[in-house]
Amino acid sequence: MKIRPLDDRVLVQPLEEIESKTSSGIIIPDTAKEKPRIGVVIAVGTDEDLREKVKEGDKILFAKYGGEEVEIDGKEYRIISRSDILAVIED
Amino acid sequence: MKIRPLDDRVLVQPLEEIESKTSSGIIIPDTAKEKPRIGVVIAVGTDEDLREKVKEGDKILFAKYGGEEVEIDGKEYRIISRSDILAVIED
Amino acid sequence: MKIRPLDDRVLVQPLEEIESKTSSGIIIPDTAKEKPRIGVVIAVGTDEDLREKVKEGDKILFAKYGGEEVEIDGKEYRIISRSDILAVIED
Amino acid sequence: MKIRPLDDRVLVQPLEEIESKTSSGIIIPDTAKEKPRIGVVIAVGTDEDLREKVKEGDKILFAKYGGEEVEIDGKEYRIISRSDILAVIED
Amino acid sequence: MKIRPLDDRVLVQPLEEIESKTSSGIIIPDTAKEKPRIGVVIAVGTDEDLREKVKEGDKILFAKYGGEEVEIDGKEYRIISRSDILAVIED
Amino acid sequence: MKIRPLDDRVLVQPLEEIESKTSSGIIIPDTAKEKPRIGVVIAVGTDEDLREKVKEGDKILFAKYGGEEVEIDGKEYRIISRSDILAVIED
Amino acid sequence: MKIRPLDDRVLVQPLEEIESKTSSGIIIPDTAKEKPRIGVVIAVGTDEDLREKVKEGDKILFAKYGGEEVEIDGKEYRIISRSDILAVIED
Repeated sequence: MKIRPLDDRVLVQPLEEIESKTSSGIIIPDTAKEKPRIGVVIAVGTDEDLREKVKEGDKILFAKYGGEEVEIDGKEYRIISRSDILAVIED
Repeated sequence: MKIRPLDDRVLVQPLEEIESKTSSGIIIPDTAKEKPRIGVVIAVGTDEDLREKVKEGDKILFAKYGGEEVEIDGKEYRIISRSDILAVIED
Repeated sequence: MKIRPLDDRVLVQPLEEIESKTSSGIIIPDTAKEKPRIGVVIAVGTDEDLREKVKEGDKILFAKYGGEEVEIDGKEYRIISRSDILAVIED
Repeated sequence: MKIRPLDDRVLVQPLEEIESKTSSGIIIPDTAKEKPRIGVVIAVGTDEDLREKVKEGDKILFAKYGGEEVEIDGKEYRIISRSDILAVIED
Repeated sequence: MKIRPLDDRVLVQPLEEIESKTSSGIIIPDTAKEKPRIGVVIAVGTDEDLREKVKEGDKILFAKYGGEEVEIDGKEYRIISRSDILAVIED
Repeated sequence: MKIRPLDDRVLVQPLEEIESKTSSGIIIPDTAKEKPRIGVVIAVGTDEDLREKVKEGDKILFAKYGGEEVEIDGKEYRIISRSDILAVIED
Repeated sequence: MKIRPLDDRVLVQPLEEIESKTSSGIIIPDTAKEKPRIGVVIAVGTDEDLREKVKEGDKILFAKYGGEEVEIDGKEYRIISRSDILAVIED
């Protein structure tokens, strides 16, 4: 079963808080009210320009409350829009 | 009797909560305030770009409160806009 | 006396609730707060693209509170914009 | 003394309620909160596209609260924008 | 000392209420909440399209609360945008 | 140390109220709630169209609360956007 | 580990208040409610036009509450949009 986001959205699997601290060296300060989250891109939408800039497997930093929450086979995913993607993290 | 949505809308038949859990492996967590819904596309609007990306028979994930509710021959349908379509689900 | 809507508007004669139920098989559920209405297009505006997609005599589904109400020769009509037209109903 | 509306506006002389009922067969139902008004176009603005669609002397249906009120030589006129013009009435 | 409005603005010298009543035959009814004002154009901004339609010395009808108030050599002027200019009055 | 505003902004040094009264003959009436201010342009942003219309050294009239306040070497400056620049004052 | 901002964003390391006072001569007056901040650009997004105007290592003045806060290896950074970048400071 494959999810194909429409237009300039991506399907992202958010990393748990601890995971996101250690693996990428990025810690999102608690002080930041709406601290952004880190996750792995599972699928990229149909927008060609976005597909050039963000790839499946990329680790991204995204706005905490962006997009919609879906659960697939027991795991939490989010479908977010391009405007909620802050940066790509290159290890 | 056929419904032809205008512009970038689609006519979708929402799947019941249980149906959407089993058939596509997707469970929409109750925690998500406005959990998106799953449905089958019955008709695609006149917008050519949209017709390339979404086809009759596609199973889609769409924003819970998007569009307008209509009942045809006793069954519930919704007419939603492109911006409410989150993703296409490919089994 | 003829009404020529301007730009992307149409003049529509709403069908009564009962009429809309029987003739087109479409029943608009009372549950839908702003249940859309059904009507017959009397005149299409000057917008060329709209004139390709919606014709005089078409039966359409439109947003309940869209447009302005006018009474002509004792009958109720509405002048609505393209964005309030949800779909064309083909019997 | 001539008023030349700027851009996509028109100068319109609203017809009195009674006048508008008899002459054009159009009655604006009291029920419609913001019932549109009928008037005669006195001058059309400088916008070329608008000048093709609306002419001096046309009888038009316009949004009740659209535009600005001015009194010229003791008579009431309104300067309204294209978006407030609903339709042209052809007797 | 010359004021050169930027972009699609004009510098206008509003006529006093009485002046505006007699000279142009236009009376702005007190009933109109935000009754428009009459004034003489002192300078036109740098926007070429606007300079074709409105000239220095033109008498204009403009939205009462549009733009900013400035006093030059003891006289009241206003710097208003194109969208606040309703019409040009040709005596 | 040089400040290079980005895009369609300018760095302006506001003239004191008294300075602005005498030197340019312009008095901003206290009655105007948000009376515009006068200042000298210190640097113009990277937007080419703006650089044609506003030059370093120009005296300008700008919206009172536009932009951001910065102090450089003990003097007050503001970084404002094009939309806050009302006019250029030519002595 | 490298952060690659997406589209027209930049990753900036804000300078502490004291640092920003001495090194660049710029003092942000306490009176300015939302006083802008100074920082050093660590990475520029994928937007080509922005990459011509702002470079890694540039010192910039940016809107205080712009963007999102992230902490990397114990240091505070912000990911801000182009619209929050006021100026580049050239020593």
